[in-house]
Amino acid sequence: MVRNAMTMKIKYLTLSLIMLTTTGSLFAQKLFTLEELNFGGKNASQFYPERWQLRWDGDRLIDAASKPASVIDAKTGKAIDGETVDLDANKRSRHKGELEYCKASGAVAFLKDNNLWVADADGKEFQLSSDGSREIVYGQSVHRDEFGIYKGTFWSPDGQLLAFYRMDQSMVADYPQVNTFEREATLAPDKYPMAGMTSHKVTVGIFSLQTGKTIYLDLGDPTDRYFTNIAWAPDGKTLYLYELNRDQNHTTLDAYDTVTGRKLKTLREESSDKYVEPLHPITFLPWDDTKFIYWSWRDGFKHLYLMDINGKELGQLTSGKWVVKELVGFCPATKSAIIITKEAGDLQRNIYRLDLKTKKRTLLDNGRGCHSAQLSANGRYLIDTWQEPTVPRACAVTDTKSGKQSLQRTAKDPWEGWYQPIFEQGTILAADGQTTLYWRMVKPMDFDASKKYPTVVYVYGGPHAHNVEASWHWGSRSWETYMAQKGYILFILDNRGSEDRGRDFEQVTFRHLGQEEMKDQMKGVEFLHSLPYVDSNRLGVHGWSYGGFMTTSLMTTYPDAFKVGVAGGPVIDWKWYEVMYGERYMDTPQQNPEGYEQTSCIGKAKNLKGKLQIIIGMNDPTCVPQHSLQFLNACAEAGTQPDFFVYPGEGHNMAGHKSVHLHERITQYFEDYLKPLTINTTP
Amino acid sequence: MVRNAMTMKIKYLTLSLIMLTTTGSLFAQKLFTLEELNFGGKNASQFYPERWQLRWDGDRLIDAASKPASVIDAKTGKAIDGETVDLDANKRSRHKGELEYCKASGAVAFLKDNNLWVADADGKEFQLSSDGSREIVYGQSVHRDEFGIYKGTFWSPDGQLLAFYRMDQSMVADYPQVNTFEREATLAPDKYPMAGMTSHKVTVGIFSLQTGKTIYLDLGDPTDRYFTNIAWAPDGKTLYLYELNRDQNHTTLDAYDTVTGRKLKTLREESSDKYVEPLHPITFLPWDDTKFIYWSWRDGFKHLYLMDINGKELGQLTSGKWVVKELVGFCPATKSAIIITKEAGDLQRNIYRLDLKTKKRTLLDNGRGCHSAQLSANGRYLIDTWQEPTVPRACAVTDTKSGKQSLQRTAKDPWEGWYQPIFEQGTILAADGQTTLYWRMVKPMDFDASKKYPTVVYVYGGPHAHNVEASWHWGSRSWETYMAQKGYILFILDNRGSEDRGRDFEQVTFRHLGQEEMKDQMKGVEFLHSLPYVDSNRLGVHGWSYGGFMTTSLMTTYPDAFKVGVAGGPVIDWKWYEVMYGERYMDTPQQNPEGYEQTSCIGKAKNLKGKLQIIIGMNDPTCVPQHSLQFLNACAEAGTQPDFFVYPGEGHNMAGHKSVHLHERITQYFEDYLKPLTINTTP
Repeated sequence: MVRNAMTMKIKYLTLSLIMLTTTGSLFAQKLFTLEELNFGGKNASQFYPERWQLRWDGDRLIDAASKPASVIDAKTGKAIDGETVDLDANKRSRHKGELEYCKASGAVAFLKDNNLWVADADGKEFQLSSDGSREIVYGQSVHRDEFGIYKGTFWSPDGQLLAFYRMDQSMVADYPQVNTFEREATLAPDKYPMAGMTSHKVTVGIFSLQTGKTIYLDLGDPTDRYFTNIAWAPDGKTLYLYELNRDQNHTTLDAYDTVTGRKLKTLREESSDKYVEPLHPITFLPWDDTKFIYWSWRDGFKHLYLMDINGKELGQLTSGKWVVKELVGFCPATKSAIIITKEAGDLQRNIYRLDLKTKKRTLLDNGRGCHSAQLSANGRYLIDTWQEPTVPRACAVTDTKSGKQSLQRTAKDPWEGWYQPIFEQGTILAADGQTTLYWRMVKPMDFDASKKYPTVVYVYGGPHAHNVEASWHWGSRSWETYMAQKGYILFILDNRGSEDRGRDFEQVTFRHLGQEEMKDQMKGVEFLHSLPYVDSNRLGVHGWSYGGFMTTSLMTTYPDAFKVGVAGGPVIDWKWYEVMYGERYMDTPQQNPEGYEQTSCIGKAKNLKGKLQIIIGMNDPTCVPQHSLQFLNACAEAGTQPDFFVYPGEGHNMAGHKSVHLHERITQYFEDYLKPLTINTTP
Repeated sequence: MVRNAMTMKIKYLTLSLIMLTTTGSLFAQKLFTLEELNFGGKNASQFYPERWQLRWDGDRLIDAASKPASVIDAKTGKAIDGETVDLDANKRSRHKGELEYCKASGAVAFLKDNNLWVADADGKEFQLSSDGSREIVYGQSVHRDEFGIYKGTFWSPDGQLLAFYRMDQSMVADYPQVNTFEREATLAPDKYPMAGMTSHKVTVGIFSLQTGKTIYLDLGDPTDRYFTNIAWAPDGKTLYLYELNRDQNHTTLDAYDTVTGRKLKTLREESSDKYVEPLHPITFLPWDDTKFIYWSWRDGFKHLYLMDINGKELGQLTSGKWVVKELVGFCPATKSAIIITKEAGDLQRNIYRLDLKTKKRTLLDNGRGCHSAQLSANGRYLIDTWQEPTVPRACAVTDTKSGKQSLQRTAKDPWEGWYQPIFEQGTILAADGQTTLYWRMVKPMDFDASKKYPTVVYVYGGPHAHNVEASWHWGSRSWETYMAQKGYILFILDNRGSEDRGRDFEQVTFRHLGQEEMKDQMKGVEFLHSLPYVDSNRLGVHGWSYGGFMTTSLMTTYPDAFKVGVAGGPVIDWKWYEVMYGERYMDTPQQNPEGYEQTSCIGKAKNLKGKLQIIIGMNDPTCVPQHSLQFLNACAEAGTQPDFFVYPGEGHNMAGHKSVHLHERITQYFEDYLKPLTINTTP
């Protein structure tokens, strides 16, 4: 009994010593608060790299920095004397409830009391639906913004026809969100179809300004079918769309007659033993109404292909072990497309002219960094805006034929005179022993390799995203600088499953989300352990959304790896996530019970050893509160002790100044639980 | 700029030193975990003081510890040879949906599909209502269990009539509680009338077994009226009840004819410039059907009065600056009532025989501690069960005439061999400078007055409750022992506003709840500061429900007083609390806007300096989540950083083993943030 009492009579004495570092020279820089660093901070706007007001008005290059805007010679980059444009002059006021305005016809689609209306250029109004409600939704994005859908109305090229989505979600379960900002809290239900549950039904209507009538495509029973990537034929007589089955392992590209609504043809078909993922509408060549470009990753990488309207494949336009990121537009004069690809480097995005005849690509930028392009109407020039790891932002105007640039501008470092961490980038091998993975490391400005630093892994890890790229500071998020300033090392690794590295890289996660991703992150941890200046006993992890899922999964699957974690808006069990995203990667809980079991954090709640704070927006419509609440319950039942915080009224991410509050909170948690050095001494 | 950088370049180095205390002799005791100490713990039952199975079967004293139970001579305390009772033999199985069984008639009231039914002794069933629903509620407690109401059916003495409540709450707002334990979360709405909002309407029905018919009392429009403390006349011809206005400053005692439902008479009336609070039904004398006892605190303390059925006051039965706690019953042989009062000491509860003729009281117990009494049917004997600060539990059988006791039993200390803190009790003066307040202090077993201890104030502070009393360990909650064992001092003070100290003591909080209570608690803090062994820089505070309100209020009203707080299920703003309790003390938000403003923690969220963790049951139906969620929002907007935790599916208090989890959590928070000694040194 005495032994018992002695071993239990342990007291912790914690001494906090404030040390003032006086190495003045190194720290002649101002120190950031989150008011400067965070996008929601009061002073944030002063710390972004400069942006310029260059834009196209048709083929005219305009600098809108002045009012009226000056017109610039794209070739020389010189302002054309006396030519100005009053951009305010022909500004149109938005229609009440406006969904989409069509420049070609001057017509506008708008919503009134949940119903879809169109007003023509003369203001004449047409009512396209009458049963619109919270359950029957018109003219809005469907399928929860998956499959590249981000809107619900589609004007034909001449603006005489309007294709639109109709979504019947009356059969979908309501997630009971609560609005606590009313006098007494009220219900704010949200139709939310969870994986394996009943989904909504989508159809596509076409309204004609000429007839004033609406027809619906002859799609048949829309149950468990997805209709995506709507595209108009140049003459407006045909509407193209991709259809996916609910399993998302089969897709067809179909053409419909826009007068009768009848299906004309299936132009192509694609299947997969995992999933297909059409994300881009077809795009017609401006100089040939019979040919269009479509996207496919059938050879393992997202590439462009040419096809004619009879469904005849005309060949692969791009190929290689890299992906096309964007089809910016066309230059009819040279019969080429302007595209952005990753061929110059996995971390880069560069602009190319793709000759559609020879399939030859010509680099149109400096070959470094991450570029975006705005093309003039005729495709002869583009505005190239880019970042490089040491270039906050730059721009130039590029001749798409010759590649010659003018008007180059470079932003000065907006952080000059302020704290500047050390940004590094490197690679490790993935857990499969062969795949290269890219990481970024952010070190304190006064980094000393003989010291040991607490280190925080920031992670997202999910599909359709990456964290490490050759943009400014290697894509570092401002919070990393805040943490470095407080004496942490930050480490960010893009694991398998993230975007832009090809189909197999991304699909390795199929039916067991998070598991391969975690193995790769643990390779990152192994790498950190190999670094003498990383304190292996003080590793933390933080992520949001999919990164919250990763964080919670890591803390409960590898409970000894991280001492502290902060998981934001996490998925806890994919059965509570929505149908379209969830089933793509996980199939349904009925089809894949072992996968759902394996990936669920509920059963792993008992493993939690470190400090884990979960933070959510209490009204998160994307990753509903049920996830985190049920995890807390599982922990309470298992006797583990996570921490928790909610932002009432907030959604999946914190808006405005709440983001400052959030990141102060996240930081404080690492300060409280990861930062303190623990020295165990026995007398 | 250099100065700036230098002052900001402050680093905290925290050293945690584990010290093993080896003073073996003092600590030959076993140390508790919450599995032993907490009521939900796995081993908790072994650590409660022994209870005995003594009870009355009419006038027969029974010891049910054995099967069959032995019968005991109440006078001698000796078992009567050969006499036993098989308690299992005549056990009745509960009716499905049973509300209340009547022994006199053998009839039972029960609920079926929300409607009220009665089955007579022969099993014949009567349907008393047909419009029962979630909105129209029959036979259940009304007015949210306030005004001493805890059930909704009331059998007449002969069991031929059933009085019952009907509550129409269709006009009351739903609070949208959410059940996250379903496949997809579902709405679980709860009718919750908030202060100042529309309340429900209650009426009283009477069903007759003889006629099979139901009548309703002729109450008039029940809007904003409360009907409480239902009592039957001995002959069943009259039903008595108290009526209160919504303002709760006026009450009448009314008699109704149980055949016609008509009002016969108002027997008495009471008003207050603050509030009246009838909590006890009238009680008829067993030997005189024309006289009854009623309760009033009209002279400032809760006392008993006699009245006849014509409304004639027959005098005050008890008086003094102390309160009557319980009218246990009567002894017709001596024409006396058996009562429990606090006259022997503010912290005590003692049993007296009250001679109804002479009004003389005779002490029937040892004059110490807190006693409860179970009276035999004829009132000649009672089972006295009690605790004293050093007596875990004791019992005896008392002759109510002579006061002689037999069968005295004393429980042994169930904590023997385990850690035993030092329990102390004392007084200070309230903030009014004249009122005595009682405190309890719990000190570590190895208390050393030359050391400085982190100290936690536990607080409830609200009406209808007290924390300090002359029961075992001065009423200490087991968690206090757990904390003492970890090296904390605990301090518990019953402030003004708490129960049993008289009307003025309790009503001083009227229209500004929490404010006088906090002033008294700050007197407690002042007292703690005066103690050399209390570390004034390491004060914590913890409370639940009203105590959560007190904790949050203290942390935001006196932000320098406490370093750490844990607030459970707190009221944050009384406008979100329910009508009956809330308006009694606060009036409505419309009547008392300045009081609501003054007492709200929303506006004070910005003042938070210390660490404050708020913990709630996510489905708390008493203090709805809106309170805490809106406080978190106010903090997020003000830039202060409270912590938060929720127990999904749990209500106002944690049930079962979740209570262990909760108290581990509360403890850990003080361990993390209050325990560490902080030594600030500048180099």
